[in-house]
Amino acid sequence: MNAVDIITKKRDGAVLDEAEIRYMVMGYTQGTLPDYQMAAFLMAVYFKGMNRQETICLTNLMKHSGDIVDLGAINGIKVDKHSTGGVGDKTTLIVGPLAAACGVPVAKMSGRGLGFTGGTVDKLETIPGYQTSMAARDFMNQVNETGIAVIGQTGHIAPADKKIYALRDVTGTVENLSLITSSIMSKKLASGSDAILLDVKCGSGAFMKNLQDAERLAELMVEIGNADGKKTMAVITDMEQPLGCAVGNALEVQEAIAVLKNKGPSDITELSAVLAGMMVFLGEKAASVEEGIEKAKKALADGSALEKFKALVKGQGGNPRITEETGLMPHSNLCIEVKAGQAGYVKAIDAMKIGLASQHTGAGRQRKEDGIDLAAGLVLCKKIGDAVQAGEVLCRVYGNDAEKTRLAAVEVKAAVVIGTARPEKPQLIKKVIR
Amino acid sequence: MNAVDIITKKRDGAVLDEAEIRYMVMGYTQGTLPDYQMAAFLMAVYFKGMNRQETICLTNLMKHSGDIVDLGAINGIKVDKHSTGGVGDKTTLIVGPLAAACGVPVAKMSGRGLGFTGGTVDKLETIPGYQTSMAARDFMNQVNETGIAVIGQTGHIAPADKKIYALRDVTGTVENLSLITSSIMSKKLASGSDAILLDVKCGSGAFMKNLQDAERLAELMVEIGNADGKKTMAVITDMEQPLGCAVGNALEVQEAIAVLKNKGPSDITELSAVLAGMMVFLGEKAASVEEGIEKAKKALADGSALEKFKALVKGQGGNPRITEETGLMPHSNLCIEVKAGQAGYVKAIDAMKIGLASQHTGAGRQRKEDGIDLAAGLVLCKKIGDAVQAGEVLCRVYGNDAEKTRLAAVEVKAAVVIGTARPEKPQLIKKVIR
Repeated sequence: MNAVDIITKKRDGAVLDEAEIRYMVMGYTQGTLPDYQMAAFLMAVYFKGMNRQETICLTNLMKHSGDIVDLGAINGIKVDKHSTGGVGDKTTLIVGPLAAACGVPVAKMSGRGLGFTGGTVDKLETIPGYQTSMAARDFMNQVNETGIAVIGQTGHIAPADKKIYALRDVTGTVENLSLITSSIMSKKLASGSDAILLDVKCGSGAFMKNLQDAERLAELMVEIGNADGKKTMAVITDMEQPLGCAVGNALEVQEAIAVLKNKGPSDITELSAVLAGMMVFLGEKAASVEEGIEKAKKALADGSALEKFKALVKGQGGNPRITEETGLMPHSNLCIEVKAGQAGYVKAIDAMKIGLASQHTGAGRQRKEDGIDLAAGLVLCKKIGDAVQAGEVLCRVYGNDAEKTRLAAVEVKAAVVIGTARPEKPQLIKKVIR
Repeated sequence: MNAVDIITKKRDGAVLDEAEIRYMVMGYTQGTLPDYQMAAFLMAVYFKGMNRQETICLTNLMKHSGDIVDLGAINGIKVDKHSTGGVGDKTTLIVGPLAAACGVPVAKMSGRGLGFTGGTVDKLETIPGYQTSMAARDFMNQVNETGIAVIGQTGHIAPADKKIYALRDVTGTVENLSLITSSIMSKKLASGSDAILLDVKCGSGAFMKNLQDAERLAELMVEIGNADGKKTMAVITDMEQPLGCAVGNALEVQEAIAVLKNKGPSDITELSAVLAGMMVFLGEKAASVEEGIEKAKKALADGSALEKFKALVKGQGGNPRITEETGLMPHSNLCIEVKAGQAGYVKAIDAMKIGLASQHTGAGRQRKEDGIDLAAGLVLCKKIGDAVQAGEVLCRVYGNDAEKTRLAAVEVKAAVVIGTARPEKPQLIKKVIR
C-alpha cells in the first residue's frame, strides 16, 4: 500500500476501503505520511467526496485517535449540543442552564472563537472569576451537584481531526461535506455524551450557505451519530442575519442573561427554547420535543433557568452578581452609533460581514494565537423586517481602539441593507432532522 | 495575496492572473510557500485545469527560474528533439547522428530513465569510455567540430519545474495537460535551441493513452513553443507496443547501431527517418519535411549517419569499435526465452507491461537514486501483426539475477496477446502538428 496509489484512486473517483483510509489518516497523525500527500488527498476528497461508508470510517478513525471521554460518573442521560458555528450564537449560555433546569445533566466542553465566529469559552472568560478549566473529577462532581458545568475542551480528543483540520484550514479543503461531518462527529462521539443535538446553521453567516447543503450535512451527521449508538437529532436554523442582537464576548453574555430573564430578543429566545426542548426530549425528561419545549419555556418564565445559570457561574468560581450588575463585566471605552441613511425596512443584515466587523473591533481573532478584546463587539438595534427612520440607530459598535472601532462601524453600515418594501422575517427554524 | 485564496480560487474554477501564479510557483521554489499548499494547489489544477494564458505564464515562470542556456557559440540553427517518453524509445541515438549527417548541428542534453521509461544518458553510459558530462565550452566545440554532442542535463535548468515535478510525482498530480506541457516546455525553452521537435507518444506505454489527449498536448506545446519565438513542430507516434524490439540500455544501443547500419526493425527505422527529416527541415537544411526525410534516408543508406555516430562516441571519449564488436558492450549472464503458448497472430504487446518487465530485470529504476543493470532488458522477436507458431520464441529476456529475470519473463508472457485473426499493424505516425 502506498500513498500515491491511494491519492490517485480517490482522485479518479473510486471508493476507498478501511485499510486505505486508515493508512492516510493514521499515517498523517503519527507523522509517517508527509503533509503534502495529505494535502493532495484532501483536495481529491474535496472534488470526489466520500460515500457514507467512507465517511463513517474516517469519523471512527479520528474518534479513536485519542481519548474517549468517560462521563459515567455523571448520573442521568448526558446530552451534548453542538452548533456548526455562526454569528451572535450564544445559545450554549442559555440552552445549557435551560436544559439543566429541566433536569438534563449538562456536561459541556466548548471551544474558542476563530475568524468571524465566536466561541463559548471566550464568552465565559468575560465573567469575573469564571474558571474554564477544571479537573475531570471536579467537572463531573459539579454536574452531579448543580446539574451543569461548562469548561474548555480538555484532554486529547480526536488529535487526528485536530491535525487534519489545521491542514484543511491552510489548503482550501474545509468546505466538503464528508470532511466537515467527520470532523464534527469524531469529536462529539469521543466526548462521552449519551445523545447529541446538532444545531446546523444555514445562511450567509454559516459554512452552509443554502438549505440543501445544510440538510445533507445534518442528515449525514444524524446518521453517523445514530450508527455509533448515540441518539442524535439535528435542527437547521437561520444564519442569514446574526442570532439575537449582540455580537462580541461580554456583550453576548449580557444578552444571554437577558434571555434567561425572559427579556431578550425574540429570535434567540425562541431558538433557545426549541434547542433546550429537544435536549430535554433526548435526555428523556419529556415524552416529546413539544413537551420539552413547553418545559423549557416554563423554566425561562419561572426564573429557574436564570438560577441554574447563577449556579453554573458560582460553581466555576465566577461572580453570579453579574446577572444584576452589568458593571462587573468588561466594558469598552468607545461606542459608535451606525445610523440609517434612509427610511424604509431592514432588508438584509449580512451575518458574515457583521461577524467580520465584530472580529475587527478586536472581539475576534484571525489566528488561534491572537489575543482578543473581551468587551468589544456590536449590538444591533434593528433586525430584518424592522421599520427604520432616516438617522435612526441601526447598531452600536463598541471597542477600545478608535481606528478599529471606526472601521468596524463602516463595515456594519455596509452589511445592513435598507429597502422600501417590508420583507418577510426569515424563518428561524428551517427543519428538524431526527 | 495569500496561498489559501489562490488555492480556493483555482479550486472553484477561476482563472489565475500572472501575479497569483507567480506567488505560488516562485514562493514554492524559494521555500516560502510550504509544500502542502503547493500540493493542494496542484490537485486543484489537476481537476480544474489551466487555460492557454495560465499555462504560458506557468511555463515562463519555470523557464526563468534558473539558467537560460546560451548555445550562441554553435554555428547554425540548433534543433532540439524531445520525446514524451515511451518503451524502447532509442530514437535520440539514431536521429541525432542522422540529423547531424544532414548538416543540422545537434547539441543535445538528455535525461535518465525512471519507472518504465528509459533515458538516453543511461543508454550512452553502456558505451565503454563515453563521458556524459562535459564543460559547456567543450560541448559547444564538439558540436562545431563533429556536428553532434549528447550529454546529460547540466546546469541549473528550470529548478522550479524540478521541484514541482518531484512534488507532482508523489501527490498524484502528474497527469494534467497544463502541468505536463509547462514542465516539458519550460526546460526546452531554457535549453538554448532555436527550434524544437516534439515526439508525443500515444498509447498504453505512454503518458497519453489516447489520440485526443496526445493531440491536445502536442497542440498546446507547439503553440507555447511558437509563442516563445522558437519554431516548434510535433509528431504523434504510436506507443501501443514498444518501439523497435530492444528494451534495456545496452540492448537498445545495439539496436540503434543496427538501425544506423540500415539493418534495424522497420518501425524504428521509419520513425527515425521521419523525426530526422523534420529536424532537417526545422534546421533549414531542406525546403520541406519530405525533402528532409529523403535526405535522412539517404544518410542511413550511405553510411554517413553511422559515421556520425562513431564520431559522436569518439568525441566523447567512447570506443567507436562497439559498432562492429558488440562484445565490448555490457552483457548479461542469463537469457530466458518466452515462447508462444499457441499459434496465431500477435494481437497486442502492452508497452507499459513490457516497460515494467524490463525495469524488473534490473534495467530500470523505481526511484531516482536506484542503480541499474546496464546489460539487462529484453528483445522482442515478434511485433503486432506477426504470425507465430506454438512454441516459437516471442521474446528473449536478459538479466544477471535469476529470480528477477524469471519474474520479468512471466510479465512479458502476460503482456503479449496472441489471437487467431491477423490484426492491422498499428499506424506508427498518427499526426504531424506544426
